Amino acid sequence: MINKIYKSALITGAGDGIGYETLKRFLKEKIIVYALDKNVKKLKILQKKIKFNVIELDLTDTNKLYRELSKLKVDILFANAGVGRGAEGILKASRDDIEISTKINIESCLHTLKAIVPKMVKNRKGHVVLMGSLAGLYPQISTVYGGQKGAIHRIAQSLRVELSGSRVKVTEICPGRTKTNFAEAAFEDKTKAKKFMSGFTLLEAKDIADTIMFALSTRWRSNISTIEISGTEQSPGGVPIYPVKDPILT
Amino acid sequence: MINKIYKSALITGAGDGIGYETLKRFLKEKIIVYALDKNVKKLKILQKKIKFNVIELDLTDTNKLYRELSKLKVDILFANAGVGRGAEGILKASRDDIEISTKINIESCLHTLKAIVPKMVKNRKGHVVLMGSLAGLYPQISTVYGGQKGAIHRIAQSLRVELSGSRVKVTEICPGRTKTNFAEAAFEDKTKAKKFMSGFTLLEAKDIADTIMFALSTRWRSNISTIEISGTEQSPGGVPIYPVKDPILT
Amino acid sequence: MINKIYKSALITGAGDGIGYETLKRFLKEKIIVYALDKNVKKLKILQKKIKFNVIELDLTDTNKLYRELSKLKVDILFANAGVGRGAEGILKASRDDIEISTKINIESCLHTLKAIVPKMVKNRKGHVVLMGSLAGLYPQISTVYGGQKGAIHRIAQSLRVELSGSRVKVTEICPGRTKTNFAEAAFEDKTKAKKFMSGFTLLEAKDIADTIMFALSTRWRSNISTIEISGTEQSPGGVPIYPVKDPILT
Amino acid sequence: MINKIYKSALITGAGDGIGYETLKRFLKEKIIVYALDKNVKKLKILQKKIKFNVIELDLTDTNKLYRELSKLKVDILFANAGVGRGAEGILKASRDDIEISTKINIESCLHTLKAIVPKMVKNRKGHVVLMGSLAGLYPQISTVYGGQKGAIHRIAQSLRVELSGSRVKVTEICPGRTKTNFAEAAFEDKTKAKKFMSGFTLLEAKDIADTIMFALSTRWRSNISTIEISGTEQSPGGVPIYPVKDPILT
Repeated sequence: MINKIYKSALITGAGDGIGYETLKRFLKEKIIVYALDKNVKKLKILQKKIKFNVIELDLTDTNKLYRELSKLKVDILFANAGVGRGAEGILKASRDDIEISTKINIESCLHTLKAIVPKMVKNRKGHVVLMGSLAGLYPQISTVYGGQKGAIHRIAQSLRVELSGSRVKVTEICPGRTKTNFAEAAFEDKTKAKKFMSGFTLLEAKDIADTIMFALSTRWRSNISTIEISGTEQSPGGVPIYPVKDPILT
Repeated sequence: MINKIYKSALITGAGDGIGYETLKRFLKEKIIVYALDKNVKKLKILQKKIKFNVIELDLTDTNKLYRELSKLKVDILFANAGVGRGAEGILKASRDDIEISTKINIESCLHTLKAIVPKMVKNRKGHVVLMGSLAGLYPQISTVYGGQKGAIHRIAQSLRVELSGSRVKVTEICPGRTKTNFAEAAFEDKTKAKKFMSGFTLLEAKDIADTIMFALSTRWRSNISTIEISGTEQSPGGVPIYPVKDPILT
Repeated sequence: MINKIYKSALITGAGDGIGYETLKRFLKEKIIVYALDKNVKKLKILQKKIKFNVIELDLTDTNKLYRELSKLKVDILFANAGVGRGAEGILKASRDDIEISTKINIESCLHTLKAIVPKMVKNRKGHVVLMGSLAGLYPQISTVYGGQKGAIHRIAQSLRVELSGSRVKVTEICPGRTKTNFAEAAFEDKTKAKKFMSGFTLLEAKDIADTIMFALSTRWRSNISTIEISGTEQSPGGVPIYPVKDPILT
Repeated sequence: MINKIYKSALITGAGDGIGYETLKRFLKEKIIVYALDKNVKKLKILQKKIKFNVIELDLTDTNKLYRELSKLKVDILFANAGVGRGAEGILKASRDDIEISTKINIESCLHTLKAIVPKMVKNRKGHVVLMGSLAGLYPQISTVYGGQKGAIHRIAQSLRVELSGSRVKVTEICPGRTKTNFAEAAFEDKTKAKKFMSGFTLLEAKDIADTIMFALSTRWRSNISTIEISGTEQSPGGVPIYPVKDPILT
């Protein structure tokens, strides 16, 4: 159960996947929620059953981002929005993949923090939850996505230092591969996307939502700084050898 | 609630602090527990109220460790035992501090894994919870304690790789400063110990037990690899300057 | 001495500081250099003494970036360009600081890699040197700058995985505070900037250039993946306490 | 060239491999060297050609360690001694492997620091070089060796904090797989050992010695904190999937 000191929340990327799952949990606990997404179709349907606020917003539109978010004062910020474009690596990513994914995965996250966190500091209460990734913690194939999630890891850790003494808490959730529509967006090739998301028992959005609910349930004095969660059948690591046919001898 | 696939547990360092708090949680959930400690006074008192097994064992006694643990087959291993000796750093630690703390904080942990984990692998079920520390994740003053908890961090991460495909899960809990008798053991000077443990709202053993219960509650498919938890008023980090009066110019 | 397999190099941010110092070293070793910067004043002066190519380019201009860099084929890429805007943290950074620094510190670095690295892969030879920072490795005060350099750290590590088997090497240099014009750009307040850059024996640009030359001097078989260098009087770390006057008790 | 402020050095594990290679470099630069090893055969032969001191010592003999090292006052400590026993992981390691490798790889390193570093602090000059490993930085198969090298990583980082303001510098070298007799000691099975050390262009002891010489060559003001070096054909990382035939569904 979410700590009773929190009454309201903003969720970015709330329209589907982990954000949507978390939204439903928040609503069950009577949190006043602002659910932000570019695609609000599922949100509009949910709104027919339960009351909450929808913000239709493409996070690459920085002007609108500040305009919309400057109105809000919330206790919880779940900066969840992210995109897998470029997840196949720098060699395969297009110029557009790089631009859009950097904008959404890092820049809009910083703008969102800028728009929301100072009010938490002033209000001397708040909890920021950032959506990291295993890709932000360990070396892996994607220079683009890994770099962006690596930024989130360091943003979370530095924000905690920056907010020292403010009573605002910061949690980073770092999941492994999760059954969402991430892969469909990340890979152009549908067969590849399907393969990426099969062959083992994947994490599901509700597993990740559980970690967020746990972090938000703690007493104020204790801060869950980081939760790393992966499929039990997925283990980051190893120091593989990639022999080259024609090594250079000097 | 602990996942129903787990029926039994071994807790090392169960006689006090985080281990003792976790023991009480396990018992509340009807887990068959083997509670191991060198000092079993509190355990003997608890045994009068509720049924569980006590193993009186000094973990520096490797022969007895293997003798006692070779008899056990458990679903959960909470390798919690640790000692703060040497926490003031290499310059202040004695030879004895180094020997005993390395033996307890690292070597006995590896022996415990050696004695218990192969049976989990054979049984194709199990959950290992390792007690890390912020000191194992970030640079801080103690070369001795930090080094030892740094070992635990890497043990947890490598054990996960080693157990890939075995169905056995591995979780590492990395707490910041917690209200236990750690400081009394870590500092000879009682005033220092008291100061170390005051001046802010410390974590308590039950905060840490909450994280363990959460990790053990997850579905099998999802593994909580790491939880980093610190007092909200404690933030690892910073890149401080230590000016030297007489820098060397070459 | 730079490994003889390398004949040419592109340096971004070559107009001053670490980039300029490295440029001079490369020229001394007869490397054909493309020196890229927005401000080419110092480069123009140097060109009067020694022959090399200058590319006048603001890295926020992505069109021009691809236009200029698509012409080049080099053995060494030193992706050094970076800006300290926002280094005071998210609470003090302006919207502009966030936009421009994300564009330069991360996005343009990815575009530069995209423009240059595939040709190295095709040519089966190359060495990418990325400019990280202590701020990318450890939690510290700046959410903005730290996040961006955290991205570089993960970019470097993932690029190495992505380039496995390609014969292209990747090195990340992570310096602490260095006597350059970084602080002047990072802090609006000149007194603050001066204070940031005094009080201890700072690293100098030539110390960092030494590390780059060392990494480039190694035999092909051995890759200097990361060099972390800090002022001897500067040590990242510590787990400080920030007591709050009015802690929340639930 | 080693910084002129250093005149003398202690090398542990100097009898072969990286230690021996570094010894020869030190002697070439007229450093007064104390070369410590359990097996001094190669050292005795070298002594016939060039003058230096040999300390015959098994580092598991803590009494003798303190007795011998308490006599020394050196400017450089290269704590290089280490053993690969247990490198196949906790499931394959024997009780003896765990005991001996923990003793040598961690405990004796702490004792060596305890015996040598306080004199450096008093003398206000010194440089400690610690032998880490990729295995100490990234998750990989060996719980035993990885844990021990993880300890060294955190020892190096915390020692730097502990020695802040003392003028003593601390460098950690983290190599990947290197052509030494490591594998022969690490694997009982000679075929396995051979396989471990073939199939790609391995690092050689001289590559590692180069990094040490570089770190010791820097001006006093700049500290090479960490150098990570791997075979160009070896890249830590990846987030592999290990599907289980019989996943548990709860």
